[in-house]
Amino acid sequence: MARFHLPPEQLPTAWFNLLPRLDSPLDPPLHPATREPVGPDDLAPLFPMALIQQEMSPEPWIDIPGEVLDILRLWRPTPLVRAERLEAALDTPARIYFKDESGSPAGSHKPNTAVPQAFYNKQEGINRLTTETGAGQWGTALSFATRQFDMECKVYMVRASYDQKPYRKIMMEVWGGEVVASPIDDPDSPGSLGTAITDAVRDAVTRDDSHYSLGSVLNHVLLHQTIIGLEAKEQLRMAGEDLPDVVIAPCGGGSNLGGLSFPFVPDEGVRLVAVEPASCPTLTEGSFEYDFGDSAGMTPLLPMFTLGHDFMPPSIHAGGLRYHGDSPIVSKLVKEGRMEAIAYPQGKVFDAAIQFANIEGKVAAPEAAHAIRVAIDEALACKESGEAKVILFNYCGHGHLDLAAYDDYLHGRLIDA
Amino acid sequence: MARFHLPPEQLPTAWFNLLPRLDSPLDPPLHPATREPVGPDDLAPLFPMALIQQEMSPEPWIDIPGEVLDILRLWRPTPLVRAERLEAALDTPARIYFKDESGSPAGSHKPNTAVPQAFYNKQEGINRLTTETGAGQWGTALSFATRQFDMECKVYMVRASYDQKPYRKIMMEVWGGEVVASPIDDPDSPGSLGTAITDAVRDAVTRDDSHYSLGSVLNHVLLHQTIIGLEAKEQLRMAGEDLPDVVIAPCGGGSNLGGLSFPFVPDEGVRLVAVEPASCPTLTEGSFEYDFGDSAGMTPLLPMFTLGHDFMPPSIHAGGLRYHGDSPIVSKLVKEGRMEAIAYPQGKVFDAAIQFANIEGKVAAPEAAHAIRVAIDEALACKESGEAKVILFNYCGHGHLDLAAYDDYLHGRLIDA
Repeated sequence: MARFHLPPEQLPTAWFNLLPRLDSPLDPPLHPATREPVGPDDLAPLFPMALIQQEMSPEPWIDIPGEVLDILRLWRPTPLVRAERLEAALDTPARIYFKDESGSPAGSHKPNTAVPQAFYNKQEGINRLTTETGAGQWGTALSFATRQFDMECKVYMVRASYDQKPYRKIMMEVWGGEVVASPIDDPDSPGSLGTAITDAVRDAVTRDDSHYSLGSVLNHVLLHQTIIGLEAKEQLRMAGEDLPDVVIAPCGGGSNLGGLSFPFVPDEGVRLVAVEPASCPTLTEGSFEYDFGDSAGMTPLLPMFTLGHDFMPPSIHAGGLRYHGDSPIVSKLVKEGRMEAIAYPQGKVFDAAIQFANIEGKVAAPEAAHAIRVAIDEALACKESGEAKVILFNYCGHGHLDLAAYDDYLHGRLIDA
Repeated sequence: MARFHLPPEQLPTAWFNLLPRLDSPLDPPLHPATREPVGPDDLAPLFPMALIQQEMSPEPWIDIPGEVLDILRLWRPTPLVRAERLEAALDTPARIYFKDESGSPAGSHKPNTAVPQAFYNKQEGINRLTTETGAGQWGTALSFATRQFDMECKVYMVRASYDQKPYRKIMMEVWGGEVVASPIDDPDSPGSLGTAITDAVRDAVTRDDSHYSLGSVLNHVLLHQTIIGLEAKEQLRMAGEDLPDVVIAPCGGGSNLGGLSFPFVPDEGVRLVAVEPASCPTLTEGSFEYDFGDSAGMTPLLPMFTLGHDFMPPSIHAGGLRYHGDSPIVSKLVKEGRMEAIAYPQGKVFDAAIQFANIEGKVAAPEAAHAIRVAIDEALACKESGEAKVILFNYCGHGHLDLAAYDDYLHGRLIDA
C-alpha cells in the first residue's frame, strides 16, 4: 500500500474545460416550451451568470477563485492510493490505483462543486439555494458549502432515502440544511431524483432570494469536478507511471466520472469506462435524444442518453446512480465511442465491495463499489493475459451511511437487480 | 489549512515504552482471589505471551513486527492537520494542530492496537478472539484485525449501544465479526463496559482455541497506540514547530490519550491534559486504589483511579468514555501531577463539535469532541493572554456512526450531564 500526496501548493488552480476540446460542438439545451436553444437569460432565474457562462465557456482552462481554493484545501489535494494488497490478493500483474475522494466533509466528491456553486451565487447576492438529493451525498455537500458562505439551504430529499437514511438527514442539519421529503405533494410516493428536481426548481423560481443548484449532469458541475482527474494525473507521475491504461468511474448523472476522466480524454489510448447499475442502464440501454432533466418537464431539454424523464428506477442501494438521464458531454463521448459503458447488477457490485473492505479496509459507498467491481474484473483479465496494465478508478465516497445496504447483502435480502 | 504527511518510509518501526521511563515503578496487578501480584502464567489463559511480556517490559523501545506494519500502512502515517480556519474564527494567536486518526478502517485510533493483538495471538496458534465493545469502535477494529489473519472474532456489545447503533454492528459483520448484546444473561439490562468485559472474559477462559482482547487500559494497548504521538512529533517538526505547549486527548480507558501523549512525557514543560465526561469523572472525582477491570471481579486488580467496578455510568453519547476505571499508567501520571485532568458535561462538548464541523468540515466522534472542547478553550485563553501557544489534540475518530447524538443535540433532546 502506497499513498501519494500532492503538496498543498500543487492543488490545481484552474479547472479543465472539455467543451472547447470536443471534436464537434455540443448540441445546445432547448427551451422546454419553445424548443428553441436557450440563452443565458433563460437560465438566469435559476443560476448565477458566472455559472451560466461556465456552462457554455469556450475557454480551455477556468481559474478557480481564491475563496473557493481556501475551502477546498480543507480536504484537497486528496490522496491517490495504490491498492497493493488487492493486487496481491488477485495475483494480478496489473497496478491498481484509486483516487480517494471519501475524506471530504460530505464523504464524497460532491463538495468539489458545491463550494464553487455556493460561492458564485453568494457573489451575485443570492442568500438561499434549493436542491434535490437522492442518496443524500449531494444535499450534504451543499449544506456544508452554503454554511461556509452564511447562506440558507433547502434540500428536497427523495422520500425513499429520507425514510431509509435518517443519518444523512442529520448530517445535513449539522450544517444548517433544511431537509424535507419529496415529492412534497404526494406523501405516498417513494419519489425519484426527477420529482425532487421538480420540487427544488419550483421553489427557486418562486422566490427572488433563491437560486437552484444541481449536483451533476450540467457542464459546469462536471467542470468543477475535473480537479479530481488533474490531481490524479500529477500523482500518477509521482508514482512513476506514465498514463493509465484504463480509467473507471461509476456513472449516475456523470459528475464523478467526468471529474476523473475528462482530463484524460485528449490522451489517446487511455480507455475510459462508465459503470452504471443494471436496473438504471441509461448509457447501455437508453436512447440518445433530447429529454427533460426532471420528471415534470420544467427544465431545459438536454441532448443525452435517457430512459425517459418519467422512468421510475427501482429502489436499489446506489441512490446516486438512480437517474434517468446523463451528462450531455458524457453521453456524447459514449455515443462517439471515446468512452465505454458497462452495467452491473448490485449483487456482483456488493461482492466486490466486501472483497475490497476485507483486503483494503475501506467500506465503500455503493456508488464507488460499481467502480471497484470493474477494476477487479480488469485486474483479473490482466492475470489471464499477463498484461501489467495501470488501472485507475474513482473511490468517490465512503459507505459509512450506507451500511443498511451491506446488512441486506450479508443477510440475503439484497435484490440482485 | 495545512496538512502534514509523513513519507511512508518514516512510519515508526518501534513503539515507545513509557514503563521504564517512569520516575518510580508501576505497582503490579494483583490476582483477584489471592491479592498477590500476578505473574505471566496467571495471564496466559487470556493473552499470548508476547503481549504479557510487553505488559511488563523494561525495554524503552519495542520493535513493530513487519506483518503488523504492512497492515498499518493501509492508513498510516495519519495526517497532522493545522486548523487554520478554526484559529481565524477564534481570532487566537495560538496555533492549533490535530492528529487525524479518523481515516483508519474502523474510523478511529483503535486498529493501531487491534492489529498487533491479533497478530501476536495468531502467532501463538490462537484462532479466535473475544472482546467487549461500548460505542462500537473497538469491536469494529478487532473485527477488521482478526479478518486480516483469518481468525474468528466474537464481540460482546453493551446492549444500550447494540440497540442504538445498528450501523456499528453491521460494520463489524462486514469484517466477519459475530456480535451479541451484553449482558447475555439479562436482556433487560442496558449493560456497561464492565459487564461486557465479564461476558467476553468468561467466553475466552472456557475455550481452548480462544483468547481475550482488550481495547484500552492495559500497558501493552497504550504501548501500541504510541505510534500516534511518535508520528505527531515528527510532523510538528515538519510544520516548523518545536514542542507543543499543550497536548489534549479524551480519556475513557486511556488508549488514545496515552497514544498521543506518552512520547511527550519526558519533554518537560509540555502540558498533558486528559478530558473526561462529567457524568463518568474517573480521574477528576474517582479514588486511586486497586480495583477490578470488570463488574463481576474476574479480572486482576489494577492500581488506578476508579469510580468503583460496580459503577453504572449514565447513557451519555461518548460511549467510549463510559468506563469506571482508567489505565494504571495514566492514573499514575495524573496522581503524580505530570498530567492534568478536566471533566465536561456533554452539552458544552457538542457545542464545540458543531463549531468544529461548521468551520473545519469534520463531524467528530463524541469522544473526539471532548478534546476539541478543551482545544478551543485553550485557544480562547491564548486570545486573552496574547500567547501564541502550540496546541495539539487527538482527533481520535469520526462521528459518522454517532449522528443520532447530533440529532439529539440539534433538537434539544441531549441530556446535558
